Amino acid sequence: MSILVVGSVAFDSVKTPHGAVSEAIGGSATYFSAAASFFAPVRLVAVVGQDFSMDALAFLRHRSVDFSGLEVADGQTFRWAGEYEPNMNDRRTLDTQLNVFASFRPMLSDVHREMEFVFLANIDPELQSEVLNQVTRPRLVICDTMDFWITGKYAALLSTLARVDVLIINDGEARQLAQEFNLVRAARRILEFGPRAVVVKRGEHGATLVTNDSYFAVPAYPVVSVTDPTGAGDSFAGGFVGYLAKTQETNDAGLKRAMIHGSVMASFNVEDFSVRRLATLTHGEIDQRLHAFMEMLRFE
Amino acid sequence: MSILVVGSVAFDSVKTPHGAVSEAIGGSATYFSAAASFFAPVRLVAVVGQDFSMDALAFLRHRSVDFSGLEVADGQTFRWAGEYEPNMNDRRTLDTQLNVFASFRPMLSDVHREMEFVFLANIDPELQSEVLNQVTRPRLVICDTMDFWITGKYAALLSTLARVDVLIINDGEARQLAQEFNLVRAARRILEFGPRAVVVKRGEHGATLVTNDSYFAVPAYPVVSVTDPTGAGDSFAGGFVGYLAKTQETNDAGLKRAMIHGSVMASFNVEDFSVRRLATLTHGEIDQRLHAFMEMLRFE
Repeated sequence: MSILVVGSVAFDSVKTPHGAVSEAIGGSATYFSAAASFFAPVRLVAVVGQDFSMDALAFLRHRSVDFSGLEVADGQTFRWAGEYEPNMNDRRTLDTQLNVFASFRPMLSDVHREMEFVFLANIDPELQSEVLNQVTRPRLVICDTMDFWITGKYAALLSTLARVDVLIINDGEARQLAQEFNLVRAARRILEFGPRAVVVKRGEHGATLVTNDSYFAVPAYPVVSVTDPTGAGDSFAGGFVGYLAKTQETNDAGLKRAMIHGSVMASFNVEDFSVRRLATLTHGEIDQRLHAFMEMLRFE
Repeated sequence: MSILVVGSVAFDSVKTPHGAVSEAIGGSATYFSAAASFFAPVRLVAVVGQDFSMDALAFLRHRSVDFSGLEVADGQTFRWAGEYEPNMNDRRTLDTQLNVFASFRPMLSDVHREMEFVFLANIDPELQSEVLNQVTRPRLVICDTMDFWITGKYAALLSTLARVDVLIINDGEARQLAQEFNLVRAARRILEFGPRAVVVKRGEHGATLVTNDSYFAVPAYPVVSVTDPTGAGDSFAGGFVGYLAKTQETNDAGLKRAMIHGSVMASFNVEDFSVRRLATLTHGEIDQRLHAFMEMLRFE
C-alpha cells in the first residue's frame, strides 16, 4: 500500500569528526523516502527551488518514488548547515535558509488525497493539519515534530496530534511536549493527546514504543562506524512506516516489528553522509541485517 | 552457588525531587546484596565504623546473607551525600567522608577464599586485585569501576581487568576507559583488556551486553515513579550476578537472561529511597515483573 510523505527536500552542509559534505541532498522527505521505498511505493510532497536538479533524487525514481507532488517554486531550495561534536550525539546548527520552504503550502492532488498511509514529517503543525484536511480516507497517520514547534505552536501541535495515530519524537522533545521528566509518564501523557502509539527516539540508545497495551524497546543496531547521524530519525520513520504499509499489520505486534525495521534502516543511513548509503543499499543487505538484529534481540 | 561481594557499606544522605533521606543505609555491597540475596546466598566483605548498628542490615540476615566478613573498625562509617537534578539522571556529590573505608584492606577468610562467584564492587582496583589474589578457585569474576579509578589508577585497573570475566560499567565510563566515543567500539576495546563480557549501563535507557559473539540490550523496565536512582547500578549487578550464581549458566544465553534479571532488580530499587523497596520486596513481586518484562521484550 502506498505512502504519502509531506516534508522537506533540502541541501545539507554537514561536518562530523569523520569528514564533511557541502550542499548534499537531504531533508526529512528525502531520507524518509529513501528508506521507505524499499518496502512500499512512496508519493512525495515537498518544495524545491529553481536551483534544484532532479539528478539528486534519480536513485529514488528507480525505486518508483512518485515526484508528481514535488513543487518547483521561484527561489532557492531550503539549505541547512550543521556540525556534530566528537560524541556524534550533539550537533550545532550553523545556518538555516528556509528559502522556498518558508512559503510551502502542501496542495494534494486527487491521487495524493486517497493515500491511506500518511507520514507528516517535521513541518509546521498547521501545515500538518492542512494535509490531514485534504486526505480523504487515512488509515494510519504518523507524524514527527520538533522542539521549535512545541515551543512556538503548542496549541496547533495539539490539534494535529488529536488526529494522528503514531507520533515519532525524540526523548528530549517528548519530555518537553508532555511537560514531564519521566519518559514513561511523558509517553503516556502524549497518548492522552490523541495518538494510539508513541515512538520515543533515544539516539544511540535506540527507540521505545509505547501504546496503551505495549511497551517495547529496540537498541540502535550496533554500528561500528557512525559517519553522519543526519537523517537517522527520518530513515527510522521510513523503515517503520514502510514496513507497516507493506504488511498492513498495524496492531501492536506489527508496530513492534516496524520498530526493528526502523532501527535497521537508521543504522544503514548513519554509515555515510547524506543518502549515500541508502542510495546504494540492496534488499539483500537489509534482509541480512534484519535477520542479524532479530537474532541479537531474541532470548530464551 | 554462593557469591562473594567486596565493596562498601555506607550511610547516604540523598535528596531528589521526590524527597530526601539522611544517613540511610547504602553502599555498593549493601545494594548488591539486597538484590542478589533473592537468587543465591551472599557473603559480604566490607568495613563499617563504631557508629554502625547491624539493625540496618537486619533484613539481609533474614535472607541468609553472611556478615562474617563485615569488619568493624575504629572510626566512623563511610558517608556520602548527594542531590539529584529534576531529570533524575544527573547528580551532584555534596559530601564524601571515606572514614574507615579509607584504610579498608579486604582480608578473606578460608570460606570466602573458596567462593566461585565473585563480585568486586566499585573500589580501588588495587584492592580488587588483592581480593583476586586471595580467592582460590573463582569461576566467574564480575567487577564494577568508576571514572575516579579510570583517571587515577588506569594501570592498576587494566591489571584487574585482565583477571575479570565480566565488567559492568556505565556508558560514559566505558568511553573513558576505552578512549573511544563509539560505544560499540568502546565495548569491543574493553573485551581486549581481558573480560569476555562487558555490560554497559545506560541509566534510564537500559543496559547493553557485549561479548565476542553477542550483542544484547535491555531497556530499563518502565518505572512510572522513580524516587531515588541511588544504587541502581549495584542492584542491577545484584540481579545479574545473583541469577548467574543461581543457574550457573554463564554462557551467552545465560548472560542475556541475567541482563533481564538485573534490569528488573534495578527497577524495584529506584522506586524508593535507600534499600527500602528491596527490603520489603517479595519473590512473587519479582517473578511477576520478570514475566511482564519478558513479555514486553518478545516479538514475533
